[in-house]
Amino acid sequence: MRILMIGFGNVGQKIAEIFSKQPEDTKLSLLQPVFIGIFTANHGAVVNDRGLPLKNCLEFYRKHKTFDASYAHYFRGTVIEAIRSLVYDVMIEVSTLSIKDHGEPAVSYVTLALEAGRHVVLANKGPIAFRYRELSKLADKKQVHLLFESTVMDGTPVFSLSKAGLIGCTVTAISGIFNSTTNIVMDGIRRGKSAEEAIHDAQALGIAEADPRLDLDGWDCAVKLAVLGNVLMGTDINPAKIPRDEFTPVIPELARQAFKSGKYIRQVGKIWREHGKVYFKVAYSPLPESDPFSSVSGTSSAIRIETDCMCPQVILQENPGLADTAYGIINDLLTIQSAGSAIPVKAIAD
Amino acid sequence: MRILMIGFGNVGQKIAEIFSKQPEDTKLSLLQPVFIGIFTANHGAVVNDRGLPLKNCLEFYRKHKTFDASYAHYFRGTVIEAIRSLVYDVMIEVSTLSIKDHGEPAVSYVTLALEAGRHVVLANKGPIAFRYRELSKLADKKQVHLLFESTVMDGTPVFSLSKAGLIGCTVTAISGIFNSTTNIVMDGIRRGKSAEEAIHDAQALGIAEADPRLDLDGWDCAVKLAVLGNVLMGTDINPAKIPRDEFTPVIPELARQAFKSGKYIRQVGKIWREHGKVYFKVAYSPLPESDPFSSVSGTSSAIRIETDCMCPQVILQENPGLADTAYGIINDLLTIQSAGSAIPVKAIAD
Repeated sequence: MRILMIGFGNVGQKIAEIFSKQPEDTKLSLLQPVFIGIFTANHGAVVNDRGLPLKNCLEFYRKHKTFDASYAHYFRGTVIEAIRSLVYDVMIEVSTLSIKDHGEPAVSYVTLALEAGRHVVLANKGPIAFRYRELSKLADKKQVHLLFESTVMDGTPVFSLSKAGLIGCTVTAISGIFNSTTNIVMDGIRRGKSAEEAIHDAQALGIAEADPRLDLDGWDCAVKLAVLGNVLMGTDINPAKIPRDEFTPVIPELARQAFKSGKYIRQVGKIWREHGKVYFKVAYSPLPESDPFSSVSGTSSAIRIETDCMCPQVILQENPGLADTAYGIINDLLTIQSAGSAIPVKAIAD
Repeated sequence: MRILMIGFGNVGQKIAEIFSKQPEDTKLSLLQPVFIGIFTANHGAVVNDRGLPLKNCLEFYRKHKTFDASYAHYFRGTVIEAIRSLVYDVMIEVSTLSIKDHGEPAVSYVTLALEAGRHVVLANKGPIAFRYRELSKLADKKQVHLLFESTVMDGTPVFSLSKAGLIGCTVTAISGIFNSTTNIVMDGIRRGKSAEEAIHDAQALGIAEADPRLDLDGWDCAVKLAVLGNVLMGTDINPAKIPRDEFTPVIPELARQAFKSGKYIRQVGKIWREHGKVYFKVAYSPLPESDPFSSVSGTSSAIRIETDCMCPQVILQENPGLADTAYGIINDLLTIQSAGSAIPVKAIAD
């Protein structure tokens, strides 16, 4: 399976790391991926039609924080040229989400790859949140896979489950806790910290961004809801239109009051169908201790899926890390391979 | 899709009910099932090669509690003759589990159907708990499906999830709460009832059997663990060999003490791999309130799946009923259909 990877941040590097030290006897060895190109946003790119030495690329990049002309496989062309003209089976899109640019440039990259007849696997939520309908139509037309298990809940099989296990059902409602920063901030407030201290803790853990408002004001959750709504409930929502509770000073105060009466406050994302219309909301919600969502803290997350034919199904993901996001991508690659859509080729030895 | 159904108890009747009133516009209408035979254990059978009038069969059976010679489609032959000689695509096995007979006669029925080249879908755990290895080999040899989503957690997509969403992973441990009767008994004890009163409540709800020991002494849980171990961890265990905590008078006492210190006692089933061997256990275990398993009560159940490559995944099923078991079966039928293995034929109108 020949792979072009766009993005080489934490997730991209983790994928490279896993495939660099992949032992012979795991199920992953079935994949035999050959990386023919790796593109970073601002720190160069590497390409080799016959397969890059993955471990060596990773070591070079981690040492120099960039790919430059001193590296044997340095590539001077643009990412658009690469997506159009290189020969590969699957494009992995793990670059950073840009909400203000409505998922661009990733939307364009994915469009070009699909137009070239390549399968696409994403961890970047942007294209699925902002342009799922047209991208999935294009993938259908080109008869290629467009998979994105890692976009919500870091690789927990939310979409695989719905596709394989709820076939006869129509999803009527989804709710969940999808954002780690707000979990950590709420847990901190519960332990008596100020909101500022708790936000600082989340930043120190590397969970919250320098600007934590994307998480605290519900943007991250709204984008994930858009992905879930578009894929599982047939919507075509603009994430910017989803109502969000912002993290005003009243929120920590509400949280403190809730904790006193044995309740938890969590940032809960909800989608529900009512009189034929689908509604979205991101809200700081009080939950009783007996609610399974109350046990979700730190980087853990949770989703409840309701359907017209079965009882609610809740999935909890306990303390995921980067490896989970990477394995979500790998699961998608294995799905493509098991569908017989890509023939494994022998990897170039490092 | 032509169907032969073995068993017409609560689950079999629920399936018939769903397909009898299936509206035109649901995803289920894709199936267009034609039931060509329905067999009960001790109350007769009905057969029609061109398709039984399902609603009419259900009404007759519910009124008379039996199929007899007064009914137009009454069948005088044996179930073994029917499995061997009738023409159908899928056999649904929803008869009652017999632990003391090691899953028989269902094991023989499933074997005969597979040998005849038919797909098999089960809610009856027996064949998968006692003879999975040989049955799955036979299904592979005959290139037919052997599916059983409803055997554990009433249709919650445990097996579909593992198949579609944890492809690259090896399961290292499974734990869960799988038995409703023990949940209800423990909840009753927590509310101050005696064990006897709590057991009576579970019987009054129709959850516990007349002899509740199969549940309380862990047999039901052990059989489900055998299914999970055989399918997800490659074991070939005899359920009778799984160590089980029995419900001795000390258990209610332990439960009362645990509740006083803010803990819950639940019947937890566990499978884990250690030094290359796989171990099984059914035990009454104290759980802290923060454990998501503590929120599982009544007919709800829970499973935690651990793998070598991702963080633990927990699935909670909230208050399932008969419809969930029936939809697990229907999901399996849809899986077979979407694999292109059975051509839908027009159903006979009632």
